[in-house]
Amino acid sequence: MNYRMIGYLLGLILLIEAALMMLPLSTALIFGENVMPFIITVLIILAVALPFALFKPKNSQIYTKEGFVTVAAGWILLSAFGALPFVISGTIPNYINAFFETVSGFTTTGATILSNIEALPKGLLFWRSFTHWIGGMGVLVFVLAILPSSGGQAMYLMRAEVPGPTKGKLVPKMRQTALILYGIYFVLTIFQVLALLICSFPLYDALVTTFATAGTGGFSVLNASIAGYNNPAAEWVIAVFMLLFGLNFNLYFLLLIRKVKDVFKSEELRAYIIICAASTVAIAINTAHMFNGLEECLRISFFQVSSIMTTTGFVTSNFGLWPVFSKSIIIILMIVGACAGSTAGGLKVSRILILLKNIAKEFKRIVRPRSVNVVRLDGEVLSPETVHIATGYLTVYITIIIITVLCVSLDGFSFETNFTATLSCINNVGPILGDIGPTGNMYDFSYPSKIILSLNMLIGRLEIMPMIVLFSPSTWRKR
Amino acid sequence: MNYRMIGYLLGLILLIEAALMMLPLSTALIFGENVMPFIITVLIILAVALPFALFKPKNSQIYTKEGFVTVAAGWILLSAFGALPFVISGTIPNYINAFFETVSGFTTTGATILSNIEALPKGLLFWRSFTHWIGGMGVLVFVLAILPSSGGQAMYLMRAEVPGPTKGKLVPKMRQTALILYGIYFVLTIFQVLALLICSFPLYDALVTTFATAGTGGFSVLNASIAGYNNPAAEWVIAVFMLLFGLNFNLYFLLLIRKVKDVFKSEELRAYIIICAASTVAIAINTAHMFNGLEECLRISFFQVSSIMTTTGFVTSNFGLWPVFSKSIIIILMIVGACAGSTAGGLKVSRILILLKNIAKEFKRIVRPRSVNVVRLDGEVLSPETVHIATGYLTVYITIIIITVLCVSLDGFSFETNFTATLSCINNVGPILGDIGPTGNMYDFSYPSKIILSLNMLIGRLEIMPMIVLFSPSTWRKR
Repeated sequence: MNYRMIGYLLGLILLIEAALMMLPLSTALIFGENVMPFIITVLIILAVALPFALFKPKNSQIYTKEGFVTVAAGWILLSAFGALPFVISGTIPNYINAFFETVSGFTTTGATILSNIEALPKGLLFWRSFTHWIGGMGVLVFVLAILPSSGGQAMYLMRAEVPGPTKGKLVPKMRQTALILYGIYFVLTIFQVLALLICSFPLYDALVTTFATAGTGGFSVLNASIAGYNNPAAEWVIAVFMLLFGLNFNLYFLLLIRKVKDVFKSEELRAYIIICAASTVAIAINTAHMFNGLEECLRISFFQVSSIMTTTGFVTSNFGLWPVFSKSIIIILMIVGACAGSTAGGLKVSRILILLKNIAKEFKRIVRPRSVNVVRLDGEVLSPETVHIATGYLTVYITIIIITVLCVSLDGFSFETNFTATLSCINNVGPILGDIGPTGNMYDFSYPSKIILSLNMLIGRLEIMPMIVLFSPSTWRKR
Repeated sequence: MNYRMIGYLLGLILLIEAALMMLPLSTALIFGENVMPFIITVLIILAVALPFALFKPKNSQIYTKEGFVTVAAGWILLSAFGALPFVISGTIPNYINAFFETVSGFTTTGATILSNIEALPKGLLFWRSFTHWIGGMGVLVFVLAILPSSGGQAMYLMRAEVPGPTKGKLVPKMRQTALILYGIYFVLTIFQVLALLICSFPLYDALVTTFATAGTGGFSVLNASIAGYNNPAAEWVIAVFMLLFGLNFNLYFLLLIRKVKDVFKSEELRAYIIICAASTVAIAINTAHMFNGLEECLRISFFQVSSIMTTTGFVTSNFGLWPVFSKSIIIILMIVGACAGSTAGGLKVSRILILLKNIAKEFKRIVRPRSVNVVRLDGEVLSPETVHIATGYLTVYITIIIITVLCVSLDGFSFETNFTATLSCINNVGPILGDIGPTGNMYDFSYPSKIILSLNMLIGRLEIMPMIVLFSPSTWRKR
């Protein structure tokens, strides 16, 4: 284990966090708010991180294990220090609550413990939404993009942080791949801010809403979430942008290099659109009696499907009151998630395609024992290894869900509450059903539950393995 | 596809059903009840089955596909004709309800649509419980045991009907293996009847309760299930026998041939006992305040854990009223199920062991990339094929659960009701939670839901693939 290199990378990550905190700090300055919480936090980060970040170790070689440990520890540290402004300012006095809120931010979950969001100063709310934007693309990928020489270690960091069974690099060099991905992210972000300004959003609201959309996070600065703006045009815009951020970013790259045909060959894209359209229609029909007219019904159904499937978690209708059929669709969409290589959580459409195609293959083997059976995606034959990893992923995913539901059930909420809270956290969605409902908050969960659910958010965002590797004793045992 | 051989085997299965109906018919005679429902049913079965069963085709060779089709079609036909006495007698006038009840019987699920079970005549209740005993070991295995020459086809039938990832034959000849298994089943059944007679059960109640225990079914002849007997000693006896019938029958064979050491080497046995003991203790502590004294608390916890884990489904306490933590354990036990090669449903402990060991292997590969990693069970290395089938099984299992929950949700019951009804049916457990509760019945579900849940019971009992093969168009397509 290359401890010095891990320490160096973790130091760098924290310095980036301190640098990024200049933005909410400036916001607080502009609105004439107290900037001390940010200044104190930045000073603490500098004191802790500088000793590690200043000296690059001679041996910078790391492997899979170190990559996983760095990413998992990095995300926990980001959240641990990112929570400080909430505690120092006294807006979320309890550290565990602040940690939960910050993990929820960075992992782009969007579950909150706040009952009155609007009572927070604008600078802190900016930070809260900005964590979504930072977490969406990941910080390690960012380290890659800025590191002067990212050689062998780059691949291992990216493998641990970028979600879904993706095809790997866009261009031969990892660093350039990272830069292209960030570029696409940045441009889409600007487009959405402009679109929301056109819908007459104030600049501040356009920015924070876009951060939460781009990261598929879901934090809003209004207590009533997006419903609070009462702006149908903006709802359409946000719904469409949520879908766009739920797409595999590789597809944008293919568009950029004019390989439009390849974009439409993507089976994941087609399945994503079909699932979204079918769910919207089914919910619209099932909830038609609750809304006034076709536009409202379609808009709310589409918005909520897009919001849940992309694991953003914005709310324009209290879907806890919808018929059980629609609620069941919502719960299933939480699990499905959006595309691999996007900022979204969930199992990912491509992983589900691999799993389903694998079943079809098994079935064909029984009916036609002599035919050659392989699993194909986008016309390419997948290695048994890829399929094997996807099925293994499903097993751990379910095991973690079962353990979490059991632990959280000690709080005494209903089964539906515990089950959807777990699904919502591990899939980085945000809202929950049951006793609390999508418009409620998670303040009333016990501290042990909040810690377990925070771990679930991190597990979900980093796709399980990094967190398991970090917390396993055998990782740290000397051979 | 060898249609003639499939027809011949299906004819035989139905003739066996007609022969087995002589027992409830005799019961009805003894109690002076109307025997016409049974006589008419037997005549209908003879008229339909004899033309197929009388002439054995010259080419008796069948393969996996035919084995799966025969088993799936056989179980549907058994239920379809087995439902007739309920309809003809007018006790369950609607055919879909009667079919649901009979499928629930043969698949050893034990979910009922009856609100007043005690109103049924004793002959019909005998038949209802007897279907559990028949379904427990399977009818195709029985065909093997009685067929004069069961050559190549035997293996393919057994593979489709015997649950869990088992190690295969006990003795070289399939037919003898089947006879040994039936012998063990028969002897255990007699032991339980004797034990219940000692607990001062009347002979009739001892018989029907034993049928439901042996098949891990759960139908009782009392509205209040086993709680209705108010007999603590009998509750302990039944709880222990449920556990015994949930064991892999191969272990009894090992005991018979005095390989006691091999029995205790079984990892599945150890895990089964540990899960059962841990769940009992956890529930006992969590529900202690609800019961009078340690014996009652332990008895009820142990009984309910044994009943749910073995997927029997007997009830001695309305666990719908238990704290959510205990209810969550119950829901998890529904999924776990008992041992492979038993009469129980669920995922099976050994399949779960394989899945968890596979995860551990994946994890080790990251931490120690250069070490050789394999999945072992009972000291033997499992083929990647075995592991692959287990992970594939999990995927289909979850897919079917999701589709079923969605379909059933159209009835408007709560999510908890739909979710546990689906789990209860696909795992062949019986009782459900939510609006209806473990002491309620499933009469109020719509007919489409009842048909879908019936299919789930069959899918669960036959471990998925046979039903998929039967209903897939590509099975029937000519090449």
